[in-house]
Amino acid sequence: MVKIIVDAMGGDNAPAAIVEGCVTALNADKDLYLILAGRQEDVTAELGKYSYDKTRIEIMDCRDTIGMNDIPTEAIKRKEASLVKAFWALKKEDDIAALVTAGSTGATIAGGQIILGRIKGVKRAALCPAIPNSRGGYTLLCDCGANAECKPEMLCQFGVLASAYAEAGFGIKNPKVGLLNNGTEEHKGDPLRQTTYKLMKDMGVINFAGNVEGRDIMLGDIDVAVADGFSGNIALKSMEGCGKLVLNVMKKEFGATLRTKIGYLFMKPAIKNMRSQLDFDAVGGALLLGLKKVVVKSHGSSKPRTIAASIANAASIYRNNLVGRVEELLSGVDWQNLVPRED
Amino acid sequence: MVKIIVDAMGGDNAPAAIVEGCVTALNADKDLYLILAGRQEDVTAELGKYSYDKTRIEIMDCRDTIGMNDIPTEAIKRKEASLVKAFWALKKEDDIAALVTAGSTGATIAGGQIILGRIKGVKRAALCPAIPNSRGGYTLLCDCGANAECKPEMLCQFGVLASAYAEAGFGIKNPKVGLLNNGTEEHKGDPLRQTTYKLMKDMGVINFAGNVEGRDIMLGDIDVAVADGFSGNIALKSMEGCGKLVLNVMKKEFGATLRTKIGYLFMKPAIKNMRSQLDFDAVGGALLLGLKKVVVKSHGSSKPRTIAASIANAASIYRNNLVGRVEELLSGVDWQNLVPRED
Repeated sequence: MVKIIVDAMGGDNAPAAIVEGCVTALNADKDLYLILAGRQEDVTAELGKYSYDKTRIEIMDCRDTIGMNDIPTEAIKRKEASLVKAFWALKKEDDIAALVTAGSTGATIAGGQIILGRIKGVKRAALCPAIPNSRGGYTLLCDCGANAECKPEMLCQFGVLASAYAEAGFGIKNPKVGLLNNGTEEHKGDPLRQTTYKLMKDMGVINFAGNVEGRDIMLGDIDVAVADGFSGNIALKSMEGCGKLVLNVMKKEFGATLRTKIGYLFMKPAIKNMRSQLDFDAVGGALLLGLKKVVVKSHGSSKPRTIAASIANAASIYRNNLVGRVEELLSGVDWQNLVPRED
Repeated sequence: MVKIIVDAMGGDNAPAAIVEGCVTALNADKDLYLILAGRQEDVTAELGKYSYDKTRIEIMDCRDTIGMNDIPTEAIKRKEASLVKAFWALKKEDDIAALVTAGSTGATIAGGQIILGRIKGVKRAALCPAIPNSRGGYTLLCDCGANAECKPEMLCQFGVLASAYAEAGFGIKNPKVGLLNNGTEEHKGDPLRQTTYKLMKDMGVINFAGNVEGRDIMLGDIDVAVADGFSGNIALKSMEGCGKLVLNVMKKEFGATLRTKIGYLFMKPAIKNMRSQLDFDAVGGALLLGLKKVVVKSHGSSKPRTIAASIANAASIYRNNLVGRVEELLSGVDWQNLVPRED
């Protein structure tokens, strides 16, 4: 039985969408046990709408909720907040495997680093979403927001963390890791990228494929793209914006005339396939990598199916021993003495 | 008559696609005069395929060509190279208004800064493509590759340069300028963004709209997004990659079955509209802003219509006095004493 704690009060559509997603996940996986952290009466009322196995769900009553505009480092001191109580339970209870939240990204990062804590040797936790790619799979983009400023060793560790996720989450053996840069040649980029390139080339524990460009996240043959949190965030949101624009234009154009409306009837299954291949939420959320347990940050605007996918993803990577694999890969590098070899 | 010099040997499809694009542009604009810099016999052979007004075209014979892998600062010393000869002519001949090339980006930037030279007071030239946006117009992304490392004053100037382009190129009055960041709140980002925000807020000559995120480039209500060349490049290529993936998936899905093929016949005009709204090449290329004359860098893989669009764009912004407008806006700021005001 995998026990996962869910922040029932986090996100734009909480608690309704969160609770519905929990029930969906529970009904889909007979080996799942859920703890819903949230206001008892609200969560109970939402749960009352569905039928599910009552022996595999419990409510942890929390009287407070963190908003999207609260200051993260302040917010995680509020002991009655659902996210804070969930993080403390995750830290203290050995049998809780993972946490899922659609709440404030900043508070999730703060809670992860301050309450739960990082795996020994990990310098910083990193946010890692899975971006749909042209091979019908996913490219992991790490970091994409937790660390606006990075040092070369941090980028090297992001490569390790995301490699472990590619293995545990998607069954990819020896995942190919690219360094997100403004060109593919070895000398490209700023000093951060130039030093990181040299370190990654010699690190050994990852399958380094060299520099990659923004287009390679969705079109290339890499499994992992390593970025500082600033440019990774910009890459992610630029792609999301483009994807959204495409769907908006498609909707407008395909409903424009009688002719296109008729065409749409023929095209419906194809368009459905297309949308699912471009679904940035298919995996359900971004992993907060480098922590002692599995933490999944779902979109603030998560719908029930996104929450269900996030929970299923959390359970799956726990079962595949993500944290153990991170520790194993990390131990293969002497992080104290990581210096670029002069050629 | 607007006289433009075109690097006939630059780009993957040179000289054939370049020459064809030149003829298209010439036939569309009776007030255009073109100088084609390239190997005389090759350009003549290509020109022989078309009919056009021979009094408005001339060839400048150049015996050398710069490749995509040549080192830019070395390449621009090669006096017989078409791009180098074109830059020297642009610098020396008062009546040449602009240069268009699909050749090496690095060599174009080097030639622009070293041979042609910057407008007085401009710290660095910046590459500025026009990205299709959800309002059916374009958002200018400046810089997107010329400067991997930037200082706050450079970003402020990019805002000025691109504002002038928005006015001269697209007739936008008082264009809205956003600072590309990893969040919209004032305090967001790294020290570079935090300082730049404070400077831009007080600069006066631009219409500063605050921080914007990656998605706002295509979905927001800004006309200009200011970025360092590193993250701007990643944003641009991430969006291009997403757009390309969409078109690939659409092509595959819409041709998958008899049903979808029938649907496609109905949908054809809508899909054509959709493609044109997502066309990153519609404007023809990126402007290299901050130079003494108009320089347009077209995609390396430019097709004839892209070259024709680049030439038309170059002629249009010359007629609308881009360089004069840059000078005017620049003079409104005391660049020597630009320091953030402490609140």
